Amino acid sequence: MVIVMRENATDEQIEKVSARLYEFGLDVHKVVGVQRTILGAIGDVSTVDRREFEIMDGVFEVHRISEPYKLAGRTFHADDTIIKVGDAIFGGDQVTVIAGPCSVESEEQLFAIAKAVKDAGAKVLRGGAYKPRTSPYAFQGLGEEGLKIMQTAGKEFNIPTVTEVMREKHLDIVMEYADILQVGARNMQNFPLLTELGKIRKPVLLKRGMSARIEELLMAAEYIMAGGNYQVILCERGIRTFEVYTRNTLDISAIPVVKKLSHLPIIADPSHGTGLRDKVAPMARAAVAAGADGLAIEVHHDPDHALSDGPQSLYPQQFARLMEEVRMIAWAIGRKID
Amino acid sequence: MVIVMRENATDEQIEKVSARLYEFGLDVHKVVGVQRTILGAIGDVSTVDRREFEIMDGVFEVHRISEPYKLAGRTFHADDTIIKVGDAIFGGDQVTVIAGPCSVESEEQLFAIAKAVKDAGAKVLRGGAYKPRTSPYAFQGLGEEGLKIMQTAGKEFNIPTVTEVMREKHLDIVMEYADILQVGARNMQNFPLLTELGKIRKPVLLKRGMSARIEELLMAAEYIMAGGNYQVILCERGIRTFEVYTRNTLDISAIPVVKKLSHLPIIADPSHGTGLRDKVAPMARAAVAAGADGLAIEVHHDPDHALSDGPQSLYPQQFARLMEEVRMIAWAIGRKID
Amino acid sequence: MVIVMRENATDEQIEKVSARLYEFGLDVHKVVGVQRTILGAIGDVSTVDRREFEIMDGVFEVHRISEPYKLAGRTFHADDTIIKVGDAIFGGDQVTVIAGPCSVESEEQLFAIAKAVKDAGAKVLRGGAYKPRTSPYAFQGLGEEGLKIMQTAGKEFNIPTVTEVMREKHLDIVMEYADILQVGARNMQNFPLLTELGKIRKPVLLKRGMSARIEELLMAAEYIMAGGNYQVILCERGIRTFEVYTRNTLDISAIPVVKKLSHLPIIADPSHGTGLRDKVAPMARAAVAAGADGLAIEVHHDPDHALSDGPQSLYPQQFARLMEEVRMIAWAIGRKID
Amino acid sequence: MVIVMRENATDEQIEKVSARLYEFGLDVHKVVGVQRTILGAIGDVSTVDRREFEIMDGVFEVHRISEPYKLAGRTFHADDTIIKVGDAIFGGDQVTVIAGPCSVESEEQLFAIAKAVKDAGAKVLRGGAYKPRTSPYAFQGLGEEGLKIMQTAGKEFNIPTVTEVMREKHLDIVMEYADILQVGARNMQNFPLLTELGKIRKPVLLKRGMSARIEELLMAAEYIMAGGNYQVILCERGIRTFEVYTRNTLDISAIPVVKKLSHLPIIADPSHGTGLRDKVAPMARAAVAAGADGLAIEVHHDPDHALSDGPQSLYPQQFARLMEEVRMIAWAIGRKID
Repeated sequence: MVIVMRENATDEQIEKVSARLYEFGLDVHKVVGVQRTILGAIGDVSTVDRREFEIMDGVFEVHRISEPYKLAGRTFHADDTIIKVGDAIFGGDQVTVIAGPCSVESEEQLFAIAKAVKDAGAKVLRGGAYKPRTSPYAFQGLGEEGLKIMQTAGKEFNIPTVTEVMREKHLDIVMEYADILQVGARNMQNFPLLTELGKIRKPVLLKRGMSARIEELLMAAEYIMAGGNYQVILCERGIRTFEVYTRNTLDISAIPVVKKLSHLPIIADPSHGTGLRDKVAPMARAAVAAGADGLAIEVHHDPDHALSDGPQSLYPQQFARLMEEVRMIAWAIGRKID
Repeated sequence: MVIVMRENATDEQIEKVSARLYEFGLDVHKVVGVQRTILGAIGDVSTVDRREFEIMDGVFEVHRISEPYKLAGRTFHADDTIIKVGDAIFGGDQVTVIAGPCSVESEEQLFAIAKAVKDAGAKVLRGGAYKPRTSPYAFQGLGEEGLKIMQTAGKEFNIPTVTEVMREKHLDIVMEYADILQVGARNMQNFPLLTELGKIRKPVLLKRGMSARIEELLMAAEYIMAGGNYQVILCERGIRTFEVYTRNTLDISAIPVVKKLSHLPIIADPSHGTGLRDKVAPMARAAVAAGADGLAIEVHHDPDHALSDGPQSLYPQQFARLMEEVRMIAWAIGRKID
Repeated sequence: MVIVMRENATDEQIEKVSARLYEFGLDVHKVVGVQRTILGAIGDVSTVDRREFEIMDGVFEVHRISEPYKLAGRTFHADDTIIKVGDAIFGGDQVTVIAGPCSVESEEQLFAIAKAVKDAGAKVLRGGAYKPRTSPYAFQGLGEEGLKIMQTAGKEFNIPTVTEVMREKHLDIVMEYADILQVGARNMQNFPLLTELGKIRKPVLLKRGMSARIEELLMAAEYIMAGGNYQVILCERGIRTFEVYTRNTLDISAIPVVKKLSHLPIIADPSHGTGLRDKVAPMARAAVAAGADGLAIEVHHDPDHALSDGPQSLYPQQFARLMEEVRMIAWAIGRKID
Repeated sequence: MVIVMRENATDEQIEKVSARLYEFGLDVHKVVGVQRTILGAIGDVSTVDRREFEIMDGVFEVHRISEPYKLAGRTFHADDTIIKVGDAIFGGDQVTVIAGPCSVESEEQLFAIAKAVKDAGAKVLRGGAYKPRTSPYAFQGLGEEGLKIMQTAGKEFNIPTVTEVMREKHLDIVMEYADILQVGARNMQNFPLLTELGKIRKPVLLKRGMSARIEELLMAAEYIMAGGNYQVILCERGIRTFEVYTRNTLDISAIPVVKKLSHLPIIADPSHGTGLRDKVAPMARAAVAAGADGLAIEVHHDPDHALSDGPQSLYPQQFARLMEEVRMIAWAIGRKID
């Protein structure tokens, strides 16, 4: 931690700050400049709230000098984490596509979509059984029945599955049926849920919250990893900005930023990121071009009658065409989609 | 719902849109303008996703023509809801102040603070037993022990208490000890938790999420009210913006906006809204001046040694002085702090 | 400037950074911690782009340790700047209200409004002669004719005037007629205009840009002051956020923040900050309660027929009532409205 | 314009609104629903401020039903506008790259960079002669001397040039030397400058403001086009969000959105959009993959000693490699870089 004193800070103020640092068991290095004094605090600052110093008399600014995350960062883990689930590989030179409907609606529906997306090259099947809906009056998902259909479809088409776990109490049952557990954007800082996911040994797909800074996304991953579960796949899905044309602003730049800060794989979800079908393909291509390790795409064979998010779901033939495009883009930047 | 067709929309496109509206059981009124055709859809649109129409050929824009919330809005409930908890009154001409430490740390600590804030005019005692922390390595609260201390302090000083319920599984135990249950900003869209809170009959203090539009705050209240619990106190606590000097931007304008749209009381939390002690008093005064029904203020008798959020906690004497100021401001605008 | 090296930075990388710092004529102090090395750079860093160091190998983060503004900051100018224009005083314990129509429309209109606002206690008359309009097809102001009317009204009612200068080429003419020159939000970073305003010796009312951080507002003031014109009145008028109910989010917290960082007076403009008449009074009261040195309020005697911004203009009787309220609020916090 | 009345609106309120609409010369169509009445206003609403109706008693919401821009929109101009400058083509199936230094520093510098970027495939040379700088103490550009160097380099390497025009008074001189005139982000709503640019007959490169909604970008283009200059190239360069890791958030989704709403070409500027060299290439690739008609990239042969923006400038060899990548990406989506 570095504490920058004001230009007119008194010796007494500087002493008080130093004394407080010693109280935390930190070593203090004092650099006296022409205009200002800087105090470098050396030691374990993980329990220090830097605002405690910001409000002390004579203090100008306080800067942290290490990331708050350890396990999720590259500092002590330089190599990319590679997560394998069945034939799907997240990380490394692979670009891996997850696809499927927003909600599982019936076996017939899911089988039709599963076949189409697998044929087009998707490696993981997605589908929601428990749905977080902004309106209490909207369709809330099929629940366990949906999970069973997911599992059956996964076996039938030999494709691993991912579905959202919305509540701690659903953890056991979702664990039983799904191969990857998804944490939705609204739960990115549901710390008890993250803690529970740290105790399991299945991969977690962690979506960025709508108002989460990249650092906070990595801290959420840290929560899971602190429990011993290192298989975390990050997912950019759009942040909230002043722009109103799109539902959210898909922050493509988060992809290269996360790749630099963290060894964890990161994919993009252009379906929720834009909320509009005709924007999904351009943004999916952009994410791959920017270096994403994969995509999560909503596909529906009959979006007009989908029970949720039909307007942002691709038709199977649109999805197949998109796969062709991203395959070439992956190749153009030295990566591949098997 | 109003559907505005493009200026060059064909008759066929207009017919398709009309047909789709009829499919939803809606009546369609067609207004043919000089340049554009408008379709007014009359009937129950609560299950219609308006993006379904936005992506149809020939459609320019789709507008909703009613609020998505019913119980939380003023349309069918013109009079202010007034919520009474012991001597505390939220709503009407009262301005009611909640105060206390961020975390319950010990009986000694809470008793000292409870006495001070009650003496200064606070009507509800706050304190956290379960703490949502962004770092898995930070103090997570005393748990049930903290709840017991809260209850004891409440009885000792004859003041109702409010504390956060972070998890569904804690609902029963928090119900047992606390008078008002708080939903934190990160849980504002934890829909299962909101649903459970709809089943109880104690007041809920619902904090606005950091990226929640005002409409979404009201929809979150709707979730609770849809279950039959109408005692919801809203709380503005800062939204995330590009400004970095303050932790969050306390959206004071949300107060008059909510007062117009909803009959529910709304208070402000300037402690979390700014994150800095010296900004708490100005923003608390601003909130009351703008018409807030109350405040939630963090107070600590020894903030330098607080286990959490010390830097944003007021000293008891600062709190007492703030109470004097807001008392006069309330009076200046025709309200009162008993 | 403080440069924090990565934990695994090599000696060679640290040397390279040091060498580069020396190249800029800076002294380098090296603090070697258990995990990281920190380099403190002492000297004049005003011409250094800190990103140059952020992209060097082995560098983790770079922190500035002084404000980029000198003249606008409190460090070398601890006392509040007080600006007097006629009977109006900005700064100190006074709260001063500017009022008038959005646009000058006619002598009759301006005289009617000037009389009303002066009677109610306004100390400065506002009115636009050149209007920045988002549509090229909208009313653009009366131009010099409007300036003349302003000046006549100012003399008639013995009240100083403020009007916007939109273009460098208008500077001379606006100087001739107005007592205070306003820089609109969209021109806050029109650096050539700011430079020209630094050369004059009349007060400047500088509005915060819609996407400007507080530091950038102070840097814009610095531009004017660097030219020798120290009479700058800052104005918070709302920032752009994801909230859509209000036009902008009036950032009330900017008021106490600016008061701490700068000696310049700061007022608030709740008319543009909210864009809606019924939100103007609550937000005006909030701004004064938070410590604003004044207000700028749009008032129109016939807002339904105003040529611009009628919907956010107060009726004269609403303005008079607001003046009573803010007078009491000012008094409640130890200030006064003469 | 569509006016939605409240559910409990009285007949008298509905009459008042209708009367006001007639006052504006509009036709009124009344749709009486089960719960609400809707008024459709038909006619020229370009001079109506819809807030005037929003604040009338009994009104719930007011919706515009046409874009405020006419010339910039696709409604009356379905085909892509194609702008040719020398060998450079903006629009159609071409992807065209602009490259060069942030600032023109010397003939030697510009010639070296011009040669490198032309060899790599750039079709337009960029370079700043007048620089908008946030600090009054920073390098402000070479001025006319810089323009002369630009022109010489353009002739020497047979490549058209683009440079920023910051002030109205510079318009003539910049016209004399440059082939394309750039409007910077901070000037996107400098309406007098836009008006002047409407009078010339050279292409304008119009950058999106940091807080500008897409609609406002198109309105700024409308300002230029309203004067008769239809050669406007739009440029996405990042918007301001809460994310702090990057300087701005490059809004890639603006590209497909603009392509749908407008016939004008749109390019992306990943250099300013990210502010960090190692993020430029991923974001440039993303922009092309999303359908951008071109790129503007800062390149410098010696960025460590660049007078401005060195940290976001690519080395010539990085630029050459990026050109190879985007060439393949363009091909992958059916476009080409000649």
